[in-house]
Amino acid sequence: MLISGNEYRERVESYDRAVYVRGSKSNLSHPNLQPVVNAIAYTYDLALEKSFKVNSAISGEEVNILNHVITSREELMLRYDYQRLLSMNLATCNYRCTGSDAINALYASLEGESKEKLERILIEIQKKDFACTAALTDPKGDRSKRPVEEKEMYVRVVREDSDGVYISGAKIHQSGAFAADLTFVLPTQTFKEGEEDFAIVFAIEAEDDVKYVLQNTGYQALFREEGEVEKGNPAYGDRITCMVVFNETFIPWERVLIYRDLKAIRNVLTHFASSHRCVGAACKAGFIDSMVGAASLMMKANGLEKAPALRYKLGEMIAASEAAYGIAAGGAFKGKAANGVWLPNPLIANAGKVIGVEGMAKAMLNLSEIAGGIPVTAPSEDDLKSEIGELVAKYLRGSKSFTPEQRLKIIKFIEFWLTSSHFVGAVHGGGSPSAALIFLQILADIESKEEAVKRNINILDI
Amino acid sequence: MLISGNEYRERVESYDRAVYVRGSKSNLSHPNLQPVVNAIAYTYDLALEKSFKVNSAISGEEVNILNHVITSREELMLRYDYQRLLSMNLATCNYRCTGSDAINALYASLEGESKEKLERILIEIQKKDFACTAALTDPKGDRSKRPVEEKEMYVRVVREDSDGVYISGAKIHQSGAFAADLTFVLPTQTFKEGEEDFAIVFAIEAEDDVKYVLQNTGYQALFREEGEVEKGNPAYGDRITCMVVFNETFIPWERVLIYRDLKAIRNVLTHFASSHRCVGAACKAGFIDSMVGAASLMMKANGLEKAPALRYKLGEMIAASEAAYGIAAGGAFKGKAANGVWLPNPLIANAGKVIGVEGMAKAMLNLSEIAGGIPVTAPSEDDLKSEIGELVAKYLRGSKSFTPEQRLKIIKFIEFWLTSSHFVGAVHGGGSPSAALIFLQILADIESKEEAVKRNINILDI
Amino acid sequence: MLISGNEYRERVESYDRAVYVRGSKSNLSHPNLQPVVNAIAYTYDLALEKSFKVNSAISGEEVNILNHVITSREELMLRYDYQRLLSMNLATCNYRCTGSDAINALYASLEGESKEKLERILIEIQKKDFACTAALTDPKGDRSKRPVEEKEMYVRVVREDSDGVYISGAKIHQSGAFAADLTFVLPTQTFKEGEEDFAIVFAIEAEDDVKYVLQNTGYQALFREEGEVEKGNPAYGDRITCMVVFNETFIPWERVLIYRDLKAIRNVLTHFASSHRCVGAACKAGFIDSMVGAASLMMKANGLEKAPALRYKLGEMIAASEAAYGIAAGGAFKGKAANGVWLPNPLIANAGKVIGVEGMAKAMLNLSEIAGGIPVTAPSEDDLKSEIGELVAKYLRGSKSFTPEQRLKIIKFIEFWLTSSHFVGAVHGGGSPSAALIFLQILADIESKEEAVKRNINILDI
Amino acid sequence: MLISGNEYRERVESYDRAVYVRGSKSNLSHPNLQPVVNAIAYTYDLALEKSFKVNSAISGEEVNILNHVITSREELMLRYDYQRLLSMNLATCNYRCTGSDAINALYASLEGESKEKLERILIEIQKKDFACTAALTDPKGDRSKRPVEEKEMYVRVVREDSDGVYISGAKIHQSGAFAADLTFVLPTQTFKEGEEDFAIVFAIEAEDDVKYVLQNTGYQALFREEGEVEKGNPAYGDRITCMVVFNETFIPWERVLIYRDLKAIRNVLTHFASSHRCVGAACKAGFIDSMVGAASLMMKANGLEKAPALRYKLGEMIAASEAAYGIAAGGAFKGKAANGVWLPNPLIANAGKVIGVEGMAKAMLNLSEIAGGIPVTAPSEDDLKSEIGELVAKYLRGSKSFTPEQRLKIIKFIEFWLTSSHFVGAVHGGGSPSAALIFLQILADIESKEEAVKRNINILDI
Repeated sequence: MLISGNEYRERVESYDRAVYVRGSKSNLSHPNLQPVVNAIAYTYDLALEKSFKVNSAISGEEVNILNHVITSREELMLRYDYQRLLSMNLATCNYRCTGSDAINALYASLEGESKEKLERILIEIQKKDFACTAALTDPKGDRSKRPVEEKEMYVRVVREDSDGVYISGAKIHQSGAFAADLTFVLPTQTFKEGEEDFAIVFAIEAEDDVKYVLQNTGYQALFREEGEVEKGNPAYGDRITCMVVFNETFIPWERVLIYRDLKAIRNVLTHFASSHRCVGAACKAGFIDSMVGAASLMMKANGLEKAPALRYKLGEMIAASEAAYGIAAGGAFKGKAANGVWLPNPLIANAGKVIGVEGMAKAMLNLSEIAGGIPVTAPSEDDLKSEIGELVAKYLRGSKSFTPEQRLKIIKFIEFWLTSSHFVGAVHGGGSPSAALIFLQILADIESKEEAVKRNINILDI
Repeated sequence: MLISGNEYRERVESYDRAVYVRGSKSNLSHPNLQPVVNAIAYTYDLALEKSFKVNSAISGEEVNILNHVITSREELMLRYDYQRLLSMNLATCNYRCTGSDAINALYASLEGESKEKLERILIEIQKKDFACTAALTDPKGDRSKRPVEEKEMYVRVVREDSDGVYISGAKIHQSGAFAADLTFVLPTQTFKEGEEDFAIVFAIEAEDDVKYVLQNTGYQALFREEGEVEKGNPAYGDRITCMVVFNETFIPWERVLIYRDLKAIRNVLTHFASSHRCVGAACKAGFIDSMVGAASLMMKANGLEKAPALRYKLGEMIAASEAAYGIAAGGAFKGKAANGVWLPNPLIANAGKVIGVEGMAKAMLNLSEIAGGIPVTAPSEDDLKSEIGELVAKYLRGSKSFTPEQRLKIIKFIEFWLTSSHFVGAVHGGGSPSAALIFLQILADIESKEEAVKRNINILDI
Repeated sequence: MLISGNEYRERVESYDRAVYVRGSKSNLSHPNLQPVVNAIAYTYDLALEKSFKVNSAISGEEVNILNHVITSREELMLRYDYQRLLSMNLATCNYRCTGSDAINALYASLEGESKEKLERILIEIQKKDFACTAALTDPKGDRSKRPVEEKEMYVRVVREDSDGVYISGAKIHQSGAFAADLTFVLPTQTFKEGEEDFAIVFAIEAEDDVKYVLQNTGYQALFREEGEVEKGNPAYGDRITCMVVFNETFIPWERVLIYRDLKAIRNVLTHFASSHRCVGAACKAGFIDSMVGAASLMMKANGLEKAPALRYKLGEMIAASEAAYGIAAGGAFKGKAANGVWLPNPLIANAGKVIGVEGMAKAMLNLSEIAGGIPVTAPSEDDLKSEIGELVAKYLRGSKSFTPEQRLKIIKFIEFWLTSSHFVGAVHGGGSPSAALIFLQILADIESKEEAVKRNINILDI
Repeated sequence: MLISGNEYRERVESYDRAVYVRGSKSNLSHPNLQPVVNAIAYTYDLALEKSFKVNSAISGEEVNILNHVITSREELMLRYDYQRLLSMNLATCNYRCTGSDAINALYASLEGESKEKLERILIEIQKKDFACTAALTDPKGDRSKRPVEEKEMYVRVVREDSDGVYISGAKIHQSGAFAADLTFVLPTQTFKEGEEDFAIVFAIEAEDDVKYVLQNTGYQALFREEGEVEKGNPAYGDRITCMVVFNETFIPWERVLIYRDLKAIRNVLTHFASSHRCVGAACKAGFIDSMVGAASLMMKANGLEKAPALRYKLGEMIAASEAAYGIAAGGAFKGKAANGVWLPNPLIANAGKVIGVEGMAKAMLNLSEIAGGIPVTAPSEDDLKSEIGELVAKYLRGSKSFTPEQRLKIIKFIEFWLTSSHFVGAVHGGGSPSAALIFLQILADIESKEEAVKRNINILDI
């Protein structure tokens, strides 16, 4: 079943959750939380409007592609097209991406009873059209130490009984869990023997005993003030993450999907990484699309839409977007089935991470060059409305085809792209580029490349 | 039908052709020409060995994928996999790539009688398993002038009669035509009204009255000397191009595929550009694969295979390769059918050109850093064999797992990658990156990107 | 004379000025204005502490190097060392840099009566130890039009009488004028004949009839809230600029330094550009120094100070800093005297602009990679102090050598570097890199380079 | 004393030396050796023509700046200006650069008797105007092993007597020693206790018992053929290096400058590295100047001198050149005296290495884009002179202001830049960029940068 954005909104706002914003327990109408609800609600409406839905064999329902176990390259591509469009239209995170990664990575990795548990959870997700997220990163503490030496800094089972397990620890960098219906919790890394207590995957539901502690950035301060134009992206805001804190939180066995199985952890994390890094390239394409749109509008608002040097820089931004999208598509095309799940090609997925970050950095530099200095020097909408409003309006005008206020909105939207959390988010989402480079060294078939060279130079006996 | 490398070799060596090397008419056994024959022969053998072949509805034959009118994304991907592998194994151009581009671009653009002519040519190509190339670039002369002001610098019809047309002009940058069975000749650019004389596409066959004038580079001088190790890539050599000169050359109407039709020219050139730029990304992936193999062997030959800094650089090379390949695959997946031909996505194809060049440049820099200075400072194989051979061998040794001569071969192969024509070839093959950026500006749907931004900032009335 | 930071503070806070923050007239104690006063006050204290002072022949006083007409490479280097240190210590703009550029560019360009006026102004500046800035950028309106078609968008003389001129128009991107004692106003560009009304340079003093309209960014919103840690750089804040609005503002002839003299405008702007772009490289070095310090602290706070991959990235940041500093020093060394003013080498200065921006972009990317995702996902200091403070503290801890609050401060400082106005400021301060590249084409002695090649290839007769 | 190029030529050609080219003992008239003699001879003539000479207190003579112990920033800058000009005019290595580095690094490091020996050698060098080089890199063998495990792969003392020491081992990557009057031999690295046998610095003179084994590259093959145009840079050729082989070679004590003194080795190598990396930036500036000249000529020869996109790329090349030069100048300005020697600033010197390589890579990419594909596809001068010469000439013509042969010469000169040893030479000359980054981590005062941040965020107690 697919529900509307409003239906999702009513449901999620009905949950009783401990979400802390700057130290105070808040509900989802808080100006720092509402944009996340808006963004997720939009994902529901767009899925209905543009048919980003498929039939699921698991529940027998028509479901959002993000809640689906993906079975073919075409379905995977449908997901990527959806997510590129979401990124372009939201100009921020859609928050449901990691949920899809977790569903598919788990489905490809589980067997037997675990798989049955997952299928029961999936049926609920699909029937109710849940918004799902996933949480992975542990705080880690002193990184020069192994998890056993920094136990408290890792999510772990502190005790278990016949009903379930009790979890302590925290997840950081978590995008949007407080506004999700269900969140999968996966380990931050693989483990060695002796570290089985950390080897757990489970799902948290609507009202589990969990605390969400919101991030706090400059953009969030802006959202706590009056006004609209200043916010840059007023409806959907910046990428919002939280710390998810467990304090002997009870999880019933029914929702414990992996426990103490080091190999299953390795599999699910490998699949998750590929899945998230490949869609991440499509996501970056959508972000760059939004920057291309903003750059093009700014050129027009300045009367510079024909300037060759700026058009060249716009071309480079388009190249960055299409390259990222192309890699994602290639990853989908050259993927492989694992237990009936169509997973992207891991080599291409990891290359997509690297190229996606380079593309974002390039696009931001070009957007900055095209826009000029004004995204960080413009007065505010309040100035426009004040006693000096007329004077300010006069000097904010560019091309006469745009009102000063329209030009100011474009300027503030570009400021949003250049000074919000997006850049750091792009670098680290799905792991850093360095992590992807290590995967690539491991995954690549270097031997066949060496063999080719050996044939060229006739040293086959080495 | 598919023939063997040897059958191709015998056929092509039997042609009576005017190929000039350093001013002298030469035959294909010349040390600067033979590597091209070797490379093309290898394409025949690999197609048989690894099944890079499909059934053609046009001739009813099983044909090399490069001689096929491609009808699906899977077939296009087969072509890309073939070409990546060729690039890796040959470490040079395979010379048949542009032939495939021309076949598909023409088939997608022609109609009526022209298409019938093309089909008859294709049936011959497929039945005889021809090696085909294409020639596009005119010398142009003074680039500040239009073709009509620099008439002689463009391939054009100088007169026509009931049997056919007479062509003058030249094509430069042509890869391997002298060793092909058939070459398609396409214009270097689109034309305006009044420039119809230049608007011609035709095919040249084995013994048409055409002169081929070989390029001359440093590597070619090496190939004119004794020895093997020094050549770096002794069997297949550097990318070899020629100037193709027409001097009132007669072409029968049967082989004139477009004439004076400016729109058909535009279509075929647009399709050709996409086709060549997309496969070019797969080709670059293969080249980088070869460099990865060489870098990895060099690390081992130096006892440095575990050095973290070098492994990181190797990882970056792999990322560059997989990114280029991923984009090509994405272009194939998100392509479109035109008159039954499956053509790659033009946006992704052009982005592939840009990323492919950046990847090559990155890979060469990393290979250079990994290899150290020795690729340009090493003594020669002759020194190894001389009275001072023992001393030289002693100091050429790295890890004891490699003999000095083996290490020297790896060194000279890396020198070949870093100082041959490959870099410039990668920059300009299929047009420069700047040309691709202009295509991207034209092809991109910038309006939809602007619309998304307008919705974000609520200025929909612009 | 050199005064203390507090003396400056008292003086500037005593002025009656129209400074608008979000539409309201405000005084300098406003939380968005006070950081600018703090930063400028620090420039006074540092000058005294570290002897960034010299004797001026003009006033016969010992003066701050920024208020001095620079007469030697050593003095210019003293300025650069001062500014690098200011950038590192403030982690934001020092606001007095453009004042020094204007003083030196004007002194090198003026003659006769104009120079005498300037000297009288300089004597006041030096005797009172004024904080000076300069304002250049006009709003421009539709950039496809010439100034005469967009008259109102350029600062210009609207009428004149025997006492002086009356100025209308505005300057944007102006750093800190509202907290300066004196601001030089220079044109945004050179002009053609017929555009003489725009060709004016003058000085505005403490209480001229001018309106200052503050920029408004995300970071400024943070500074309007309680707390300290969240501000990242609590004392000195982000780079703060304003729009300076003239509305028939009277300027006495005594402070009109250039009027209707197109050649003098050209000279002063060329000198100003070189002066500002060269010191800009030293400034970027200081900014990168601050990022290096932050990155190094973060590595320690995470227990990662010995990780080779991170140390490598730190090395790249140091290279970027020293390269920018080295170019500035080279510009000072290879400069030239013009009318007794020692000006930096214009070629090196423009190259410094290009390298400085590249270095900043590189440093920000590396800082982002070193810091991880947490700069944009961390909770707030308020969370630390709240009912969940203990839990949050637990998970904010890294290495045990740092308290959670200390680590949070480092995190928020890095967030400040990565999401404030610095990046856009670096790209556009002193003009964009593209503008510098155009200067370089004009300034370079390309002919001598062509001559060298002609000799190499023996085509001297061209 | 300063001698002329011809006087140098006569002297060096009179030496009886064992120089092996492709296994045969050759004299300096060999086409692969003569260009080195030509290049060095040019350094003599240019020094006289442009006064790159100073008075030496050591010999009381007027000497070439390269044979001088540099005592001031102005003298160091004179050296850099000389070397930039040499690089531009030669378009290849000047071969005397490392000699100057060795002289200055040694003079700054030696004391007592060693210094007296050095002064006696210097007096001879200066009185006879010797061309000096230095040799550092040992073959190293398996890099995963320490020198004591790979003894034979390092230059070392094999026995000593009252007259002197007997040396075995080899130096690779050595630029031009076979055409020098004197070569300083320095260790490849610093050593630990127990490795004293390797800790030796000495000078080799004209006819010591040493073997020189030439490198062999593609360009060298071209130089072994007839013709001039094809060689690209016919008089001065490519950067030519050799392996220098010692086989129990006797060196009298008088020329042993350091022996078994690990600390002196460390000092001399640190000074040498700074000295060579800083001048390397000036050298790269000159190389890029030559590429700028070639690019500008090619634009004219193609009628494209006004194309904005190409002018932009030319501007980037100029920026790269001036940035490298500016850093070198900054290194000279901010240097320090050590034992009376003025040495460049080590931080800036190492940054110069990094920026110099990036600039070269950028310049080569831009030159390649500006030149088009023709540098690697052009026919030869022999074709121009052959029976098809007229046809070939016709199609080689660009702008009518250049003859086809002139345009071909420009093309072949660009080919030379893009496919010779220059790129790898730039990457590794003076050590790789990675080596420079390690130096920067060690040399930088990171603590002061951390302190600044601590003050900003008020965590001074850490």
